[in-house]
Amino acid sequence: MTSRYVINASVTPKGSLETLSQREVQQLSEAGCGSTYTLFRQCALAILNTGARIDNAKTILEAYDDFEVRIHQQDRGVRLELLNAPADAFVDGEMIASTREMLFSALRDIVYTESELGSPRIDLSSSQGITDYVFHLLRNARTLRPGVEPNMVVCWGGHSISTEEYKYSKRVGHELGLRNLNICTGCGPGVMKGPMKGATIAHAKQRIVGGRYLGLTEPGIIAAEAPNPIVNELVILPDIEKRLEAFVRVGHGIIIFPGGVGTAEEFLYLLGILLHPDNRGVPFPVILTGPESAAPYLQQLRDFVGATLGEKAQGLYQIIIDNPAEVARQMSEGLKAVKQFRRERNDAFHFNWLLKIEEGFQHPFDPTHENMASLQLTREVPPHLLAANLRRAFSGIVAGNVKDKGIRRIEQFGRYEINGDTAIMKPLDDLLQAFVEQHRMKLPGGRPYEPCYRVVT
Amino acid sequence: MTSRYVINASVTPKGSLETLSQREVQQLSEAGCGSTYTLFRQCALAILNTGARIDNAKTILEAYDDFEVRIHQQDRGVRLELLNAPADAFVDGEMIASTREMLFSALRDIVYTESELGSPRIDLSSSQGITDYVFHLLRNARTLRPGVEPNMVVCWGGHSISTEEYKYSKRVGHELGLRNLNICTGCGPGVMKGPMKGATIAHAKQRIVGGRYLGLTEPGIIAAEAPNPIVNELVILPDIEKRLEAFVRVGHGIIIFPGGVGTAEEFLYLLGILLHPDNRGVPFPVILTGPESAAPYLQQLRDFVGATLGEKAQGLYQIIIDNPAEVARQMSEGLKAVKQFRRERNDAFHFNWLLKIEEGFQHPFDPTHENMASLQLTREVPPHLLAANLRRAFSGIVAGNVKDKGIRRIEQFGRYEINGDTAIMKPLDDLLQAFVEQHRMKLPGGRPYEPCYRVVT
Amino acid sequence: MTSRYVINASVTPKGSLETLSQREVQQLSEAGCGSTYTLFRQCALAILNTGARIDNAKTILEAYDDFEVRIHQQDRGVRLELLNAPADAFVDGEMIASTREMLFSALRDIVYTESELGSPRIDLSSSQGITDYVFHLLRNARTLRPGVEPNMVVCWGGHSISTEEYKYSKRVGHELGLRNLNICTGCGPGVMKGPMKGATIAHAKQRIVGGRYLGLTEPGIIAAEAPNPIVNELVILPDIEKRLEAFVRVGHGIIIFPGGVGTAEEFLYLLGILLHPDNRGVPFPVILTGPESAAPYLQQLRDFVGATLGEKAQGLYQIIIDNPAEVARQMSEGLKAVKQFRRERNDAFHFNWLLKIEEGFQHPFDPTHENMASLQLTREVPPHLLAANLRRAFSGIVAGNVKDKGIRRIEQFGRYEINGDTAIMKPLDDLLQAFVEQHRMKLPGGRPYEPCYRVVT
Amino acid sequence: MTSRYVINASVTPKGSLETLSQREVQQLSEAGCGSTYTLFRQCALAILNTGARIDNAKTILEAYDDFEVRIHQQDRGVRLELLNAPADAFVDGEMIASTREMLFSALRDIVYTESELGSPRIDLSSSQGITDYVFHLLRNARTLRPGVEPNMVVCWGGHSISTEEYKYSKRVGHELGLRNLNICTGCGPGVMKGPMKGATIAHAKQRIVGGRYLGLTEPGIIAAEAPNPIVNELVILPDIEKRLEAFVRVGHGIIIFPGGVGTAEEFLYLLGILLHPDNRGVPFPVILTGPESAAPYLQQLRDFVGATLGEKAQGLYQIIIDNPAEVARQMSEGLKAVKQFRRERNDAFHFNWLLKIEEGFQHPFDPTHENMASLQLTREVPPHLLAANLRRAFSGIVAGNVKDKGIRRIEQFGRYEINGDTAIMKPLDDLLQAFVEQHRMKLPGGRPYEPCYRVVT
Repeated sequence: MTSRYVINASVTPKGSLETLSQREVQQLSEAGCGSTYTLFRQCALAILNTGARIDNAKTILEAYDDFEVRIHQQDRGVRLELLNAPADAFVDGEMIASTREMLFSALRDIVYTESELGSPRIDLSSSQGITDYVFHLLRNARTLRPGVEPNMVVCWGGHSISTEEYKYSKRVGHELGLRNLNICTGCGPGVMKGPMKGATIAHAKQRIVGGRYLGLTEPGIIAAEAPNPIVNELVILPDIEKRLEAFVRVGHGIIIFPGGVGTAEEFLYLLGILLHPDNRGVPFPVILTGPESAAPYLQQLRDFVGATLGEKAQGLYQIIIDNPAEVARQMSEGLKAVKQFRRERNDAFHFNWLLKIEEGFQHPFDPTHENMASLQLTREVPPHLLAANLRRAFSGIVAGNVKDKGIRRIEQFGRYEINGDTAIMKPLDDLLQAFVEQHRMKLPGGRPYEPCYRVVT
Repeated sequence: MTSRYVINASVTPKGSLETLSQREVQQLSEAGCGSTYTLFRQCALAILNTGARIDNAKTILEAYDDFEVRIHQQDRGVRLELLNAPADAFVDGEMIASTREMLFSALRDIVYTESELGSPRIDLSSSQGITDYVFHLLRNARTLRPGVEPNMVVCWGGHSISTEEYKYSKRVGHELGLRNLNICTGCGPGVMKGPMKGATIAHAKQRIVGGRYLGLTEPGIIAAEAPNPIVNELVILPDIEKRLEAFVRVGHGIIIFPGGVGTAEEFLYLLGILLHPDNRGVPFPVILTGPESAAPYLQQLRDFVGATLGEKAQGLYQIIIDNPAEVARQMSEGLKAVKQFRRERNDAFHFNWLLKIEEGFQHPFDPTHENMASLQLTREVPPHLLAANLRRAFSGIVAGNVKDKGIRRIEQFGRYEINGDTAIMKPLDDLLQAFVEQHRMKLPGGRPYEPCYRVVT
Repeated sequence: MTSRYVINASVTPKGSLETLSQREVQQLSEAGCGSTYTLFRQCALAILNTGARIDNAKTILEAYDDFEVRIHQQDRGVRLELLNAPADAFVDGEMIASTREMLFSALRDIVYTESELGSPRIDLSSSQGITDYVFHLLRNARTLRPGVEPNMVVCWGGHSISTEEYKYSKRVGHELGLRNLNICTGCGPGVMKGPMKGATIAHAKQRIVGGRYLGLTEPGIIAAEAPNPIVNELVILPDIEKRLEAFVRVGHGIIIFPGGVGTAEEFLYLLGILLHPDNRGVPFPVILTGPESAAPYLQQLRDFVGATLGEKAQGLYQIIIDNPAEVARQMSEGLKAVKQFRRERNDAFHFNWLLKIEEGFQHPFDPTHENMASLQLTREVPPHLLAANLRRAFSGIVAGNVKDKGIRRIEQFGRYEINGDTAIMKPLDDLLQAFVEQHRMKLPGGRPYEPCYRVVT
Repeated sequence: MTSRYVINASVTPKGSLETLSQREVQQLSEAGCGSTYTLFRQCALAILNTGARIDNAKTILEAYDDFEVRIHQQDRGVRLELLNAPADAFVDGEMIASTREMLFSALRDIVYTESELGSPRIDLSSSQGITDYVFHLLRNARTLRPGVEPNMVVCWGGHSISTEEYKYSKRVGHELGLRNLNICTGCGPGVMKGPMKGATIAHAKQRIVGGRYLGLTEPGIIAAEAPNPIVNELVILPDIEKRLEAFVRVGHGIIIFPGGVGTAEEFLYLLGILLHPDNRGVPFPVILTGPESAAPYLQQLRDFVGATLGEKAQGLYQIIIDNPAEVARQMSEGLKAVKQFRRERNDAFHFNWLLKIEEGFQHPFDPTHENMASLQLTREVPPHLLAANLRRAFSGIVAGNVKDKGIRRIEQFGRYEINGDTAIMKPLDDLLQAFVEQHRMKLPGGRPYEPCYRVVT
């Protein structure tokens, strides 16, 4: 690649990594040299490409295959040395401030976290221990601001959506920003960026300084989807489940825009939590929204929830079509209830301790034939567990249809056998079918959708 | 218009109008009721429409013909009452902060200024007096920040330009913002908005809080071109000449993008000042720039300057084609020279006192046949006066070609007779011809360009 | 004086004098060279001696008789050159920040004010015009902070008091500061300093940043009583009457500590205003307080008010003996009423526009025999006018007893003839007698107190 | 005690304790209930008495023997409940902000530290581990501010000194504050308070916001000597040695005022470190100062150092008599060298990592007869070890003379036998003798000073 400009540079941190002990710096440079190095290098490269137009992780990695990042120890603290770094991250030889910030966010969350893992404070064997760990990661990233009233709105949705849907997400972000609300997303493009962009302009109009654009990501995603440049707080959680928990613990309300199967899975995760009997009465505003053209999609989701989890589950969220101002007004109202509830219970505003998350939601699900067969997908199972199982089934079916590993499993062992009611499996089927038709799920080789499972009743 | 939403509201000011004496409030409400009212109402309406898509002043005025704004006196200070105001300026019944700010900027600059005009402090009869008045208006608007290093870059250019040119201006603004520079424009759309938008994103990336987006306008313009919503400081100068003076006194460097005749006139104004013998040695970075497609336009301007004002005038600016980063780097370099110069001379950073502006530049030019005939456009005139005269001739010819009043004059009295060298008039002719061809000057009725003057030698 | 250390220095301003127009700087240097120079030089010298122990103006003036201060004009703005300035005002050659601030406060209030006097905005012939002028002076000094809730407590009392009374004033200031209240005094030593010192410590304890210690003075006083170093806002009003008006317009409540005749005069000034029928219902907390030992003094004042102005006047203030916390609590309560009242009337928090001050209070009183004879001191006069007349009589009698000019008048023309009721004159006599006994009024040559007037009935 | 006012209250923290995990709060409340409780309660009581005049810890403890402090866990975080707390710590029922801050500093440093002790991060068995622990404690207390230039001046000296010496320490603090330096002391009365008080006034004069008054204490001291109310950062280190290390790691220079044996011990500790060969070339400004009357004392210290540790040791500090401005000037100069040195070495400004502290200085010395006999106090020992041994001998002799435990040991086992040169022991003897004469060391029962040791040669 002849037109590639690279720069060698040396940068020192701002923020929580500024005051490290000699031992901590040593641990850091040791951890950074070992197995963690590949991961950190990959994230660093993604961050250094934030400004660029290329979204393809592989292309970036190949274009900068001689890129190196070295962690140096000096008395004053830690220092990063970059070799053959993308020149776009620099202005007249100096690294752009936000890029530098994100680079040290990655160092903090990947290398530092790694070096802390041995600590007996960290107990990943219990549900409470995992929640505690998520709390520590967020606190270490200075994401938790005590005393600030509930105003963090999580936006979920696809990162590869239509222009119309992207513009709609920007308009919703604009209306949220006008009402002094902050945005938290998964920090890539699409719905990850639209609401942040809209809120940025709105915050400027309302003369709000210190608007927050919080990006929660994980190593597997950031390398492929660089954080958009609006993100001004970046936290890299260790895996998908901790990232999902971070969303629901740190967010005060959630807006779900159209998206693909990933979005649907997140939605089921959320319903599974909110349906838990312990969470009855815990206010948590959830709004599904999209432009007029997304109305069928939203209706399908609604029907699917009704058919599988029932009316009560449908009562946990609102659907608002093509009305950004109304979305923002309803969210504002919902957040008032959150504020009052937390005040009454003496719960923190900055972390949703009271929300019960079953341990099942905190661990990854591996869709083997055995695991799929033992899922209970019948009406006899309580709704919150059914939601959890549906999320797993969903995850497995998607794997069987589109993911390498899943497809190979199906080829090898045949269809998944699922122990489910037709009344539940049929709507699931329909939903997936609809996703394919709306180009929200791409099948390998463009082959027609065909269920990779059969229901055993 | 049935879909029009209106709101009645009452707002109080922030900033310099917060602490008024009872007498000042009284003066304000009196001034606001008299002849100034129409002007203020018109500006207020333009500002309240900032968010809207409609750029046509007439359409807005008609759509809200029952809009009223009343100035109330109360012990605490001044209060504005709005009747039938466009609902877009409000969020859930509350006025957007930036709109409120601009509204009181208009009150401050239009009504308050009016009420102060009787003061003996104001002397509009001398050049120094006019400069002093411009200083007072800017200080009253809190635009002058003592001690801040030179970083205010004025961007001139057309407000109705091609998409390519608009995007280019955004890229230049982005590069300026990355280098911690602020933007000052005429505050409407097009080149008035592009650089501000680019700089906003760049300031966010560099974590710069307090970036300035200064809009300088005047009553005749603001009503037609509402300030874009990025403007966070708005000053309404009383007329075009004071606005031009404000640009060169408060700006530390100027970038000229492609534009129409207005832009060319501003360019000549600037050259006329910089060519003045008293201004020899006063550093003032000027850069003409545009995308590749604008290269011919820039070349024509350059040729015109060479042919009329000579090489020395050409040495007062750089032309940079299709290279936003280089524009920003050259501007940065230029500003360093400005800083050093002012420091050595003990001149203020916030107001360019040392720049000599001939009184001729401070008064409007009325292109009567008599005035046009008495313009001296020969090589015998010193270049700085020739530039001033060219600007006037230019102004008159444009009027004769496209403005109502000018066209009527030509119809009535025949062509202007101009006392000029062919060596000067020919290039002027060519330049105007080129503008027409590039669709930068629209002739009424689409008729072909034909000179409205003849040279008397 | 051989041990005198002097320094030559050049200083530039911070704050409102930073952005002056060239004309303003010129006016300043012109005004500063003329008759105003002596006054400004004297104030400057007093301010430069702030840190020093010498309270005697004459001693200072003599010690630094070669001190000079020159106002220079430069493009950047104004610059002061000091010759033979007291070295105590400097640390390693650099002027102490607060001294520099006060120096430019003096320039602003003395020289600048002078240069503005010709403005037609200033109308000293009407009561409202004088109030307006006081407003302008305070606003120009940036003393008026819009939107801040009423918290400015004026402390009046003697500047030459017993150690016990001084310590008591400090304790009261401490209790006020603990309750987030600010202090305004006449800015010299004694009661002018004690409450500020107490509040400083209390503000530090309460982690209050930006506590205000406002000193209001006038040229005749500042030269003799340098502002104590705690004062962080200094305003020099043109004369005693404007200073008194500034106290009651900008203060939200007043505490009166023991003092001499000056304090008693201030007290009568205040009662005269509060008794005005137009001010009925305007809340204005007034507290008289002192340590146990001051109880007789406070009782005498109370008796005097009762005997002359009646019970209604006594109801306008509280007396609290030896209980600093209670003083602060009552003041806090009183300020709440002020806040509510102003909110209801839409009156500004930062300036008490609604308070009616008779023009008689805004002009100085010259105690000639004729003026004294025409004072009406009978019960037939309405109480608020009687208070005004009593203040004048008081002022005259004090002059006749202790002031050069007054004593000479008595020697030349005999006793003042006063047209008063014995029921009013007797208590006045008793009060003055008590002041002498308590060493609060010193008679020349230590001669016994003897009335310098006789009552004509 | 009938006049004792008490209050029951409930307070929540500000700062680092605001965002605790549920587990941390639980640990806190558990740790706070066990053996740590007595310590925490005692410190809390001392802090609540900050404002009071009583310095006697025993008196306070007895007066409030029913005082209780309970640590409550709630979802939002930790909450302290106070029963029968001294009313002086409250204003109108609300706790004074600084008291609340200090209370949570104590919770943080005593209870929280305790609950962290099990962590494997903490290694108290190695010199580097101890340094690391001190670093963690200071960072957890947010004492370390990266990037701030060296400006923290430690002031050592007696807490029970003459009025003249107290006033002198105030004047020195004033001069330090005028030069923008901050103060760190042991946070009780006397020299612990004087410099802070002086600096407070000076910072106000220089309009410095955010002046730091850092108090480093330890549980055994704070209970007896409540932090003075000027302290705005309080850190409670676990024991005397860690407190001493904190002083030299966090302070950039040290001023030693007259004091008793404690001060002399601190001085020897410092000399021992600075004489270490590894610390050669590490700039560390040390100034001994006092008023004229303290000249003999300072001369004796100097003679003692000369006679025992030699000229090189004398070269490590300056003695300045009766000249506060010169002390501050010299300290300023010294800090410039510190700044340059750290910059060159890339050492942190906020923690003196490069200073070598022998492990011997990091552990307490127990003056048993055996330990005393094995001290090597001869010229053959390298000076830095001799200083360390002298400090120990000094500590032991003082114990033998005045401390309960030491006196009993001498009574039981006879005089200490010390393996020392007369050339070293004689000056030590003289110094102690002088301390007694100057009333800087009080012997029990007022008996005459008599050495409790004999030299074995």
